[in-house]
Amino acid sequence: MATGKGQLSTMHPVTGFKLGIASAGIKTPGRKDLLVMEIAEGSTAAGLFTQNAFCAAPVIVAKQHLASHTPKYLLVNTGNANAGTGEQGISDALQSCEALAAATSASKQQILPFSTGVIGEPLPMDRLLSGIPAAVAALSDNNWPDAAEAILTTDTRAKGASLQYNADSAAPDAGNITITGISKGSGMIKPNMATMLAYVATDAAVDAELLHRALRLANEKSFNRITVDSDTSTNDAVILVATGTSGVTIDEESFDQFVAQLKIIFIDLAQAIIRDGEGAGKFVSVIVDSAADTDEALAVAYTIAESPLVKTALAASDPNWGRILAAIGRAGVKNLDVNALQLHLNGVLIAENGAKASSYSEEAGQAAMQPEDIEIRVSLNRGQTTETVWTTDLTYEYVRINAEYRT
Amino acid sequence: MATGKGQLSTMHPVTGFKLGIASAGIKTPGRKDLLVMEIAEGSTAAGLFTQNAFCAAPVIVAKQHLASHTPKYLLVNTGNANAGTGEQGISDALQSCEALAAATSASKQQILPFSTGVIGEPLPMDRLLSGIPAAVAALSDNNWPDAAEAILTTDTRAKGASLQYNADSAAPDAGNITITGISKGSGMIKPNMATMLAYVATDAAVDAELLHRALRLANEKSFNRITVDSDTSTNDAVILVATGTSGVTIDEESFDQFVAQLKIIFIDLAQAIIRDGEGAGKFVSVIVDSAADTDEALAVAYTIAESPLVKTALAASDPNWGRILAAIGRAGVKNLDVNALQLHLNGVLIAENGAKASSYSEEAGQAAMQPEDIEIRVSLNRGQTTETVWTTDLTYEYVRINAEYRT
Repeated sequence: MATGKGQLSTMHPVTGFKLGIASAGIKTPGRKDLLVMEIAEGSTAAGLFTQNAFCAAPVIVAKQHLASHTPKYLLVNTGNANAGTGEQGISDALQSCEALAAATSASKQQILPFSTGVIGEPLPMDRLLSGIPAAVAALSDNNWPDAAEAILTTDTRAKGASLQYNADSAAPDAGNITITGISKGSGMIKPNMATMLAYVATDAAVDAELLHRALRLANEKSFNRITVDSDTSTNDAVILVATGTSGVTIDEESFDQFVAQLKIIFIDLAQAIIRDGEGAGKFVSVIVDSAADTDEALAVAYTIAESPLVKTALAASDPNWGRILAAIGRAGVKNLDVNALQLHLNGVLIAENGAKASSYSEEAGQAAMQPEDIEIRVSLNRGQTTETVWTTDLTYEYVRINAEYRT
Repeated sequence: MATGKGQLSTMHPVTGFKLGIASAGIKTPGRKDLLVMEIAEGSTAAGLFTQNAFCAAPVIVAKQHLASHTPKYLLVNTGNANAGTGEQGISDALQSCEALAAATSASKQQILPFSTGVIGEPLPMDRLLSGIPAAVAALSDNNWPDAAEAILTTDTRAKGASLQYNADSAAPDAGNITITGISKGSGMIKPNMATMLAYVATDAAVDAELLHRALRLANEKSFNRITVDSDTSTNDAVILVATGTSGVTIDEESFDQFVAQLKIIFIDLAQAIIRDGEGAGKFVSVIVDSAADTDEALAVAYTIAESPLVKTALAASDPNWGRILAAIGRAGVKNLDVNALQLHLNGVLIAENGAKASSYSEEAGQAAMQPEDIEIRVSLNRGQTTETVWTTDLTYEYVRINAEYRT
């Protein structure tokens, strides 16, 4: 199950950023499961990683390498997360970097490793290593669609986004910038200061400090605003690369425009994860407006978005606003005046004054809940802050997928 | 679905505490749905209520009445929670107190109202009021089993606990104290400083301040240690009554023994709610030991107990310890050393040193997960605190119940 359109949009190549795919048979023979990305000399890169204390071995290694070197290659395998694997996991992650370094002109510190899949099993090193030469041989800047497929696990569809914009509106032909990215993720989705796997590249020239700032800003309003099941992965990572091959340099002046464009791509990739959330039958935007501050807006939004009772009601297209009010009430908002707030479902006023709205009819509520896309809007009427969180419903299918995943 | 034995144990009457049941047809004709409890003159009473900001009208009224008067009657209806009903709800709750006051010798402030059932619908006052005379006429101290049935909603079984103990071990016949109680609850279960509905009475004489202290202590380790679905109800309430009819007075000296006995009853009633949790196929004890303090022990225990991925793995009897480690890792414990902790499932060492234990075999893990009762034990190895939380698995049946409840 999934919501929305499944089709990948046109993926514009980013000069200076190549992708090569191979089938290494890590878990399933014949499946694309190995991805190598090559970053041209002179690029900058920034990364964000999971805050889970049980972070996976490749996350530990990638953070170390990124801290001291500008990466030349990114190496991703699916089928195995190399998480909960202790010392052996670290050694395996390093060995895979060494193997890719040997097959190219890089040092192992210029390589960032990423893994996703089952937790707690040792990485099948012979198969992984044997796939590297084919992935390197396949490197091309036209391989975004195949790469989007190669990083999937329980996902049912590839996720990508791409755009081009003109950084200098006065000279329409001079300053075209491309931003293209892919993401994966479907379950164990509640990124915490990071994301599931996502790789975004641009041909803008952006110095390392500005690039990191842009990444944080775009990430905060995209991957940090989604939840499928409140579980934060051990392997989350998002990498942003700027190759500079467009010849257009992002400076303080053009920064806000760049971040705005970057956010479009990031939100698109983040929403694609929710649309493909495990067992998803609904795509739900939880908007909390007129909150006193970001913290309380997010507390209310996440409490609604993660309430099993709200999510099962959504699965049944049931306008069970009592469960939403109950979730708001336990969100820990200080001095909440329950009589001051309003609740809308897809534009229909459902509750105010602490009770069902007098204008509300069960028929209108039922009708509002039928679409695949649902907007839950809570107006706290006590401030100026608005925050949005995206989530799914909770279906039989979610339970089936997660009760059967390992077997 | 439910776990464990469904049979109610012997319910010892508590002299001075009478119960009367009626069928008022509030939601379903013919079902026992109205309960009146009469508290003898000279008793003391203590109560704890939900911390949900959207607390129901009867909770607001009951708290006000309890603050100024010693209650003579408790009035409970099922089928309708009188929550999310605004001003009308308050007025309905007060009117039901007035009706019971008129039918007895009490004032309306001596009556505590309680409601449980669907949220957001007005209380059907005519039916509720018409049931009161029959419930009053039926008052008897032998009605605990019927009362346990009358307060159920989505519960599949009645929940009660009862014990007798000797407060003075030197004089075996002189000091017998009885403690008997009932509870209800199955979904929207994460009591927060309170509980679902529970009524416990004792014939000990306990002054009001001591009784409140005893209630807090017993509640903290019982109803405040359970979660089915992380959703805190709008109607939670627990009431403890001491009639004093045994002639035995609890003082500072005998207080600890009294609390220890009270905890047995409270834990029994709290566990009964989890055993009857919506869709429950497993009864799960999450024990976190050697923690630095209570806060971190509970953070780890609740993060595991509420993780949809852990709960679906439990439903499949899958020893998916990677999901448990991932939950521990996102619990927000400061400076957690993931290599220092150990994880046991039903006594089998599963993980240590940040990875699968070398002694572990998949067969042993599978075998450990087969029983209906599962103990997940996390040893943080950084302190002296142990906390236990009880929960259920997450099954198809949970989704079915909650996707269909209103329709």
